[in-house]
Amino acid sequence: MANAAGASEEELPRASSADEEVVEEEQIGTVNERLLDYRSLNLRRHAPNNTSQVAIVGSNLCPIESLDYELVENDLFNQDWRSRSRSAILRYVFLKWTFCLFIGCVAGAIGFFNNLAVENIAGLKFVAVSNLMLADKYWTAFAVFAGSNLALLMFATVITAFVSTAAGGSGIPEVKAYLNGVDAPDIFSLRTLAVKAGPMVHIGACIGAIVGQGGSRKYGMNWRWLRYFKNDRDRRDLVTCGAAAGIAAAFRAPVGGVLFALESLCSWWRSALLWRAFFTTAVVAVTLRALVDVCERGNCGLFGKGGLIMYDVTADNITYHLADLPPVILLGVIGGILGSLYNFLMLKVLHIFSQVNEKGCTYKLLLAATVSIITSCCLFGLPWLAPCSPCVKDDCPSIGRSGSFSNFQCLPNQYNDLASLFFNTNDDTIRKLFSNGSNDDFHKSSIMVSFITSYVLGIISYGVAAPFGLFVPVILTGATYGRVIGMLMGSNTSLDHGLFAVLGAASFLGGTMRMTVSVCVIILELTNNLLLLPLVMLVLLISKSVADSFNPNIYDLILKLKGLPYLEDHVEPYMRQLTVSDVVAGPLRTFNSVEKVGSIVHILKTTGHHAFPVIDEPPFSSPPVLYGLILRGHLLSLLRKKYFQPTCSLAGSNHASKKFVADDFAKRGSGKQDSIDNIELTAEEMEMFIDLHPFINTSPYTVVETMSLAKALLLFREVGLRHLLIVPKSANRAPVVGILTRHDFMPEHILGLHPYLTKSRWKRLRFRTSIFTKFFRAPSI
Amino acid sequence: MANAAGASEEELPRASSADEEVVEEEQIGTVNERLLDYRSLNLRRHAPNNTSQVAIVGSNLCPIESLDYELVENDLFNQDWRSRSRSAILRYVFLKWTFCLFIGCVAGAIGFFNNLAVENIAGLKFVAVSNLMLADKYWTAFAVFAGSNLALLMFATVITAFVSTAAGGSGIPEVKAYLNGVDAPDIFSLRTLAVKAGPMVHIGACIGAIVGQGGSRKYGMNWRWLRYFKNDRDRRDLVTCGAAAGIAAAFRAPVGGVLFALESLCSWWRSALLWRAFFTTAVVAVTLRALVDVCERGNCGLFGKGGLIMYDVTADNITYHLADLPPVILLGVIGGILGSLYNFLMLKVLHIFSQVNEKGCTYKLLLAATVSIITSCCLFGLPWLAPCSPCVKDDCPSIGRSGSFSNFQCLPNQYNDLASLFFNTNDDTIRKLFSNGSNDDFHKSSIMVSFITSYVLGIISYGVAAPFGLFVPVILTGATYGRVIGMLMGSNTSLDHGLFAVLGAASFLGGTMRMTVSVCVIILELTNNLLLLPLVMLVLLISKSVADSFNPNIYDLILKLKGLPYLEDHVEPYMRQLTVSDVVAGPLRTFNSVEKVGSIVHILKTTGHHAFPVIDEPPFSSPPVLYGLILRGHLLSLLRKKYFQPTCSLAGSNHASKKFVADDFAKRGSGKQDSIDNIELTAEEMEMFIDLHPFINTSPYTVVETMSLAKALLLFREVGLRHLLIVPKSANRAPVVGILTRHDFMPEHILGLHPYLTKSRWKRLRFRTSIFTKFFRAPSI
Repeated sequence: MANAAGASEEELPRASSADEEVVEEEQIGTVNERLLDYRSLNLRRHAPNNTSQVAIVGSNLCPIESLDYELVENDLFNQDWRSRSRSAILRYVFLKWTFCLFIGCVAGAIGFFNNLAVENIAGLKFVAVSNLMLADKYWTAFAVFAGSNLALLMFATVITAFVSTAAGGSGIPEVKAYLNGVDAPDIFSLRTLAVKAGPMVHIGACIGAIVGQGGSRKYGMNWRWLRYFKNDRDRRDLVTCGAAAGIAAAFRAPVGGVLFALESLCSWWRSALLWRAFFTTAVVAVTLRALVDVCERGNCGLFGKGGLIMYDVTADNITYHLADLPPVILLGVIGGILGSLYNFLMLKVLHIFSQVNEKGCTYKLLLAATVSIITSCCLFGLPWLAPCSPCVKDDCPSIGRSGSFSNFQCLPNQYNDLASLFFNTNDDTIRKLFSNGSNDDFHKSSIMVSFITSYVLGIISYGVAAPFGLFVPVILTGATYGRVIGMLMGSNTSLDHGLFAVLGAASFLGGTMRMTVSVCVIILELTNNLLLLPLVMLVLLISKSVADSFNPNIYDLILKLKGLPYLEDHVEPYMRQLTVSDVVAGPLRTFNSVEKVGSIVHILKTTGHHAFPVIDEPPFSSPPVLYGLILRGHLLSLLRKKYFQPTCSLAGSNHASKKFVADDFAKRGSGKQDSIDNIELTAEEMEMFIDLHPFINTSPYTVVETMSLAKALLLFREVGLRHLLIVPKSANRAPVVGILTRHDFMPEHILGLHPYLTKSRWKRLRFRTSIFTKFFRAPSI
Repeated sequence: MANAAGASEEELPRASSADEEVVEEEQIGTVNERLLDYRSLNLRRHAPNNTSQVAIVGSNLCPIESLDYELVENDLFNQDWRSRSRSAILRYVFLKWTFCLFIGCVAGAIGFFNNLAVENIAGLKFVAVSNLMLADKYWTAFAVFAGSNLALLMFATVITAFVSTAAGGSGIPEVKAYLNGVDAPDIFSLRTLAVKAGPMVHIGACIGAIVGQGGSRKYGMNWRWLRYFKNDRDRRDLVTCGAAAGIAAAFRAPVGGVLFALESLCSWWRSALLWRAFFTTAVVAVTLRALVDVCERGNCGLFGKGGLIMYDVTADNITYHLADLPPVILLGVIGGILGSLYNFLMLKVLHIFSQVNEKGCTYKLLLAATVSIITSCCLFGLPWLAPCSPCVKDDCPSIGRSGSFSNFQCLPNQYNDLASLFFNTNDDTIRKLFSNGSNDDFHKSSIMVSFITSYVLGIISYGVAAPFGLFVPVILTGATYGRVIGMLMGSNTSLDHGLFAVLGAASFLGGTMRMTVSVCVIILELTNNLLLLPLVMLVLLISKSVADSFNPNIYDLILKLKGLPYLEDHVEPYMRQLTVSDVVAGPLRTFNSVEKVGSIVHILKTTGHHAFPVIDEPPFSSPPVLYGLILRGHLLSLLRKKYFQPTCSLAGSNHASKKFVADDFAKRGSGKQDSIDNIELTAEEMEMFIDLHPFINTSPYTVVETMSLAKALLLFREVGLRHLLIVPKSANRAPVVGILTRHDFMPEHILGLHPYLTKSRWKRLRFRTSIFTKFFRAPSI
């Protein structure tokens, strides 16, 4: 309490020397371990002793920035708002929906062509390999198989490493962080979009963000009339729609896409957005439908039924009764355990791999090559151990066809069941596993081996610095896992193994990603069988509950590992014991409403703050009052345009509106902010004044200094703030005593200031066995 | 601005004399018209001239109350929080999930037995009628038909009128208002639950609310260890889960139920709730499954395939191409127009009927009887005009069976298609209409007549004071409408008429209720055919867009008509031109932190405010500071327990915690609040003091007086507040200058204070033709 005032420590630039960082017990091991791709952008932490507060700003690195979902209601905005013509509003609305249409079309098309490429490339590979195997050229077959795998992965790794490192991984954690208000560098650039192949959520979000930026300035694509969208709020909406479109395109699951965005990605939501996201995914569905129509005329090479995941395993006669519940419950419980173990192992591997990847591009490539060769060896080597079975089905054995049973080393008229699982695209394999009436197609041992292989390979592949998704590997592993359980049940259950595979996939998705409604709908949209619904729901509920008692979901783990300051949606219990003034630290920088240019420049140069409270002092007001909040970006605009006046007096807002249009203050795309270092001012100009009044946001959100931290966090998160001002509770003080930002709500920061609270906090990132964690979380906000 | 301070005018008691009400231009016609069932509870409006500010409190009428989703963080709460044992937390969590389990089971069972009853009663009726018709006893048949209809409706009307008027209608508007923070009287009582039959959303919400109240005090069901749930926040969660369970039980649509709650009912949502609502609906699905299993053994009378809406019209071969889009788009456009017209007519009829219903129970019964007889005449009379068709299908003609084609006046081996639509339960009729390959079963004229009849009867039935739902009539009307369009298309389309019926139902749902994702999922879960998805989405998008340009959805219209102060989720443009101090009115009542009993009693008796800011003044603090907010309910508890002290001094929180436990301050169920009139104090006691400190919420949310109204509304709504304090911007003023409540954000109130803003506001309740409305809304928050 008292006079402790807050430093707006938000921009998080390179912490180049390790001694600037305070190692807290919550970090995993050492500082280095948390760095990964974002190592140069890591959170610079407040030291409890309040030293080294001032950030080094103006470096040419892209910082992790917070986003501001609040409108800046300053005089200029209000004038603009009032004078907005009907046609401007119509254009805005028209554009908004056009963007959604565009995002839907593009995401649908990209999803389709992605799939087309995968089906054709992978299909060609498998056909070539099986032909060689048929001709007994085993070593050549291996060479072709391993060689093509290696070439593809090296290509992906090289473009990721040299064009856009942000394109690595699934991208979902970054999208999630963005929608929470954290702008990781370069995640939504055209480069990233170009490199990205596969994980559709990130692709969709990229399309949304790029559309919202009004093209890319760098590549000369910039339409002036898109300026209304140049704020974080509209961009966030477009990114949300894009992410929903991504899932819809990946799984042909339009409703699932909307729900995924709602359940897993978004931190804020409103019903108008539901409506637009739904429109976007509907467009995706129509686009896909139209493109598939074209393909059905047979112009798409190997793209057949396998294209675009849609397993459509029609089994009208699925019946189940209460007696079938125990095996299903068991499936859920084990799925939850395996899922949380998957998360745990994934984190460990990511951790080790990131240390390797950090050492440079050569290491990245070497790692990718190693992973590729191990994968090839496993996939090619293990089927030799599997027994051959006589063919009974139509599509067996496969000669020159993809998607069917594989002959491998067996005699003609026989098939190798393990090879049939490995030498197919993921989509085809999953369809095989989901199929009804195929209980006897696979040996118990083959399914076991296949499960272990996909579990392990899924974990080690993701750490490679290439664009890999998580969804399909998890579904594949889950499906094999389900079959394993089905086989172990033997005659104790009457349920089909194909049904077990579907439920296994659900339980594994629930165990790793912890989504409920969206996974449920996606599974339904994938299998096109609504009768499964109650069982899928049950399995998801159980596996999520079990897994939640061990660790958080995989995306949150990766988020933490990457050091992105994600604001949780629940309140830690100790936050109720603190007031807002307990967590602010460092000196508060304020401006007068008419301020000298020199002091503005000085403060901008010596701090990294993104916003400054402005005080109206005598002669403009007596006593001093809080006039509002001004943003760094706006101050830079004023300095660049040299909006100066010789004396300390009011200039009036008419003057300002003549000199500036709203576009001057529009927020640019991520990573394109101005720097104070680029502005040159003469000594004479430094002695002049700026009347800040017309540019100040006169409606900043405030809390009284005695407000509990828990409630301030609720406000901060629900309204989507970037800055929250603290006002004094009594009258004889300065009108503003501090400023809270995202950083001040981070548990690491709070526990750094109040180490005695640590005991009341439970460890989140550790692999825990305490089932109580979930219970403790529940009663909080 | 300046010193205008705010009156916390929240409790909205009977405005007994009409002159107290200020007729505003936004009201529909006269004051009387807005009254309906809630006429005695209508909003008392602030007169612009600030007269008659003080409400008459203490009457024995149940007021419409606001809800408070914020935690009261006072000393007692904090002590309780810190000392909460692990077992208490575990019990809380355990109870929470048990409640959901319980709600799911009960809602599933009620849904099932509701349906069972309907199937059997309606089935018996139709069988009796068709047997009489077969015996050529036409007048007897009519007498039986009309008589049973009349008896059933009279019974429903009588119990509604005499036991619980709140059970009338669909209940969805009331649930929606509750989740927005408006507690209409008696909506969630045991009486209401007992009377309610049919509309499952309200039933589910009732179960949730009653469970959360820890039983009903009135009926002696009260478990003390449920006290943790005695706050609005937990009750809201349970009501949400209950409403989701209701939809799930009504339509066997668990995912649709969750989405309906999310999209249409809730004003606030968090992901933890998604998770619990999902669990609840999963339980519903399992319960239903188990009960249907029992019925399949044939113990349920006429409850056969018709029971529990699940149309399951399996048509695997639905194909459609881009060429089929124009008729579908046309269907959507006309559906939107018809849907908004339905809303408009419904409102007019409700309006007229409510005037009749107001006149007393006799009128209610007369009205119900009239409606019932008109309905019977239509349904029995119109089929005489329909031609007979020769039987070609298995289930034709029907003798002693429900759910099949009806013989009516035709020869044996013939059927009357219109009678087949009328003389079946709604479920059976809808299944008939949705069926594939039945293009030639119905004559064009019969479908047309059926459409017009169900459109008109749907509108007039809802106004009767009995528990009627909206969903099924709307689906039925929509399905006939779809068939009409399909028939009019003739050979211009290759789509099946059953598909047209499904799309028609979707478009009509979109046109009246304006839901998107949830209707989409419900339709999918009803028809069990995912291939329909893109078409359903398209139709919904179009019909909603078209209808939105005319009027709001039916629930919002009914909400407005009932005078419930619903807080919209968007900001009206004029709110950006106002600051919070522009809308507060009337004198502010505050307490000192140690206050005289007499003044507390006086203020409680003379105002209806629900919370009072407390100021720490000398000698406890110098200068005066805002200490927090105290609730009326807490003050009443203090007065009742006579927590008095002889002098004006601090008592300390230890003293308080000895005398009070958290349960003393737990919020009771709706309509069970204490009254100051029930507390008797001696003249001596009136001279004593109370130290309020331990009972004051020290973390009330505040805004500075210059905050724009739009931003304050955002805060108010997103955080779920009941009171929002206004603090001064400068230091030389009282530490709190006003208080904002829900009422202050109501457009009627604001425009009453600032009539000049009216021109910038567009009329919401009128039947509008301006498509621009939607466009104007969009750019706002």
